[in-house]
Amino acid sequence: MQNKYKIKKVAIIGGTHGNELTGVYLVKKWLKDAKKLQRNTLTTDIFYANEPATKIMKRYVDQDLNRSFALKDLSNNTLTNTENIIARNLDKKIGPKGTTKTNFDFIIDLHSTTSNMGITLIMADNDPLSLSIAKFAQDKNQKIKIVTIFEDRLEQPYITSITPHAITVEVGAISHGTLSADLFIQTQNLVFDILDIIDTYNIDNKLAKSVNVYDFYDSIDYPKNTSGEIESIIHPKIQDKDYCKIKKGSPLFLSLKDENITPYDKEIDVYPIFVNEAAYYEKGIAMMLTKKKTIKIPSALS
Amino acid sequence: MQNKYKIKKVAIIGGTHGNELTGVYLVKKWLKDAKKLQRNTLTTDIFYANEPATKIMKRYVDQDLNRSFALKDLSNNTLTNTENIIARNLDKKIGPKGTTKTNFDFIIDLHSTTSNMGITLIMADNDPLSLSIAKFAQDKNQKIKIVTIFEDRLEQPYITSITPHAITVEVGAISHGTLSADLFIQTQNLVFDILDIIDTYNIDNKLAKSVNVYDFYDSIDYPKNTSGEIESIIHPKIQDKDYCKIKKGSPLFLSLKDENITPYDKEIDVYPIFVNEAAYYEKGIAMMLTKKKTIKIPSALS
Repeated sequence: MQNKYKIKKVAIIGGTHGNELTGVYLVKKWLKDAKKLQRNTLTTDIFYANEPATKIMKRYVDQDLNRSFALKDLSNNTLTNTENIIARNLDKKIGPKGTTKTNFDFIIDLHSTTSNMGITLIMADNDPLSLSIAKFAQDKNQKIKIVTIFEDRLEQPYITSITPHAITVEVGAISHGTLSADLFIQTQNLVFDILDIIDTYNIDNKLAKSVNVYDFYDSIDYPKNTSGEIESIIHPKIQDKDYCKIKKGSPLFLSLKDENITPYDKEIDVYPIFVNEAAYYEKGIAMMLTKKKTIKIPSALS
Repeated sequence: MQNKYKIKKVAIIGGTHGNELTGVYLVKKWLKDAKKLQRNTLTTDIFYANEPATKIMKRYVDQDLNRSFALKDLSNNTLTNTENIIARNLDKKIGPKGTTKTNFDFIIDLHSTTSNMGITLIMADNDPLSLSIAKFAQDKNQKIKIVTIFEDRLEQPYITSITPHAITVEVGAISHGTLSADLFIQTQNLVFDILDIIDTYNIDNKLAKSVNVYDFYDSIDYPKNTSGEIESIIHPKIQDKDYCKIKKGSPLFLSLKDENITPYDKEIDVYPIFVNEAAYYEKGIAMMLTKKKTIKIPSALS
C-alpha cells in the first residue's frame, strides 16, 4: 500500500557547520538511537553533514557547506573541494534538488549562533506547508521567532533547498565549539514538536492561516578603515539584543579609537538578527536587519 | 641619571591566543597610539603576540603559544614550529626568562574566555609585588576576581613567566573571534588602572597586606564514553556560574543520552572557573575548581 501522506520522510541534519556542536551532538545521539524521532505517518533519518569540519573544529574545511547547494554548483562536476563533494553526496541521498521525486520531503537543519537569537526558525522559501509548520511550532513555544529570507529555491545555496519543504533552526547565544545543556534540550524538544506537527498535518491536512515573521531587509557591515580593519564594533545597547526595535538615531556602533557612536540613520523601524555572529566577521557582517510582517498562508497547496 | 624605580618598563601583550580579539584589538589600537599608556615613572611597549594565529582565526597555528615559555623549551633550538619561534623572539625582546636583567619588568597579558568569569586576574607566580598590584586593582573595581595557580616560574610555560612580575587578564563571557564593546572598554580601563597602580608603587613602595583569592584546586574533565566522545555536558545550574559555590551533591554534569545528573561528590566546598571554555574542549576539560583563600603578602620584597 502506498503511503498517502504528504510528508513521508524527514531528514534531520546536524553539523552543516562543523563547530556548531548543538546539532552535531544531537545527530550523534540520534544516529545511535532514533526511536523517539519516528511517528505513525513518517520516518526520520539522521545526517551528520560536515564531520571533517568538526574534526578541525571549524565552520567548514574549504568553503561554507551551507552555501554549496545552488543547482548550478551541484551539477558542476569540476567543483571538487571537501564541501562540494559532501554537498553532492547529501543531494543524492536527500534530494536530488529540483526534481519532482526527492528521497526526502522535509529537512530540519540544526544550527547555532553566537548571537542572542534564542530559538529561531529560518524560512528561505515561500512554501506554505513549511511556513505553517513553523507557525504551529511557535504556537507550542511562544518564545520561538520566525525569520523569512526568501530566495529562489533553485538558485539558493542552502542545504534546505534540496527538498520541497524545510526549516532551518538557529539557537543561541552559544559559543561555537561548545555545548549548552539548556539549548541542547530546547533544540531536542523543538525537533520532537516539529515531528508531532508534521504527523498531525499528514492526517488532517490543516494549514495555519497566517504567520508573523521578521522579514530580512538589509545586512549591515562593520565600519572599516582603508586597510580593511574593523574600526567600530557593535554598540553595547545592541549587543545581545537581537529582535529589539532599532529606529532612527538608535546607536549601532562604537568606535574603537575614540568611542564615537554611529547611529542608525533610516526612517524605517527595524529589528536586528545575527548581532555579532562570530562566523560573519570574515564577511564583515555586523548584523542583519529585519522588518516585522504578517504573511498570509494560501490554504490550497500546489 | 639611572631610573631608580622598581618597574620601569611594562609590556602589554595581546593576541597571545589569536582568536581572543579583545586583546588583539586593544594592542592594534595602542600600536598606533600608546600615549595614554605612559606614566611618569615607567614606559609601556605593546606586543601583538600571535598575529599568524589571528589570520586563521584560531587560538594557535601549531601549538598553544601560552604553553611555549618553559625555560627548557626556550633554550631548545631544535623546536622550530610557528609558536616556538614566536616564543623565542618575544623572550629575547621582553625577557630573557630566568635572567636577573630582563628587558621588561612587568607583563600585562590580555586574554578572553567563553566562560562567564567577568574580569579575572590570574597570578601564576607567588610574587608579592604582582599580588599587591592585583589587590589594588581589585580595590578600584570590586567586581574583579583574583585567581592563583602557582607554579615554579622557570618551569611554567606561560608568557607571563619571562619577566619577574606579571598579571594575566581574562575577560568573559565572550565568543572567541568576536568583540564586545563593554568588555573592550572594561579591559582598557583595567590596563589604565594597573599602570596607575604601578606608577604609585614606584613612588611610595607600598604593598598590600593580604589578598583574597580563588586558588586552583583541581581540573574536572568531561565524562566520556569508551570512544573518547563527550557523554555529559555542564549542568544548566553551573553554566555561566563561574565562582558560584559547589558543595557535595551540587549538579555538575547532565548526560546527553538520558539527562542523568552527575553530582559533585567531595566534602570540600569549591568554586568553578573556566566553566565551558571553548578552548578546553580539545583537552577535555569541563571546568577548573578553586578554593577561597587569603594570602598574606610579605612586606619586604626580595
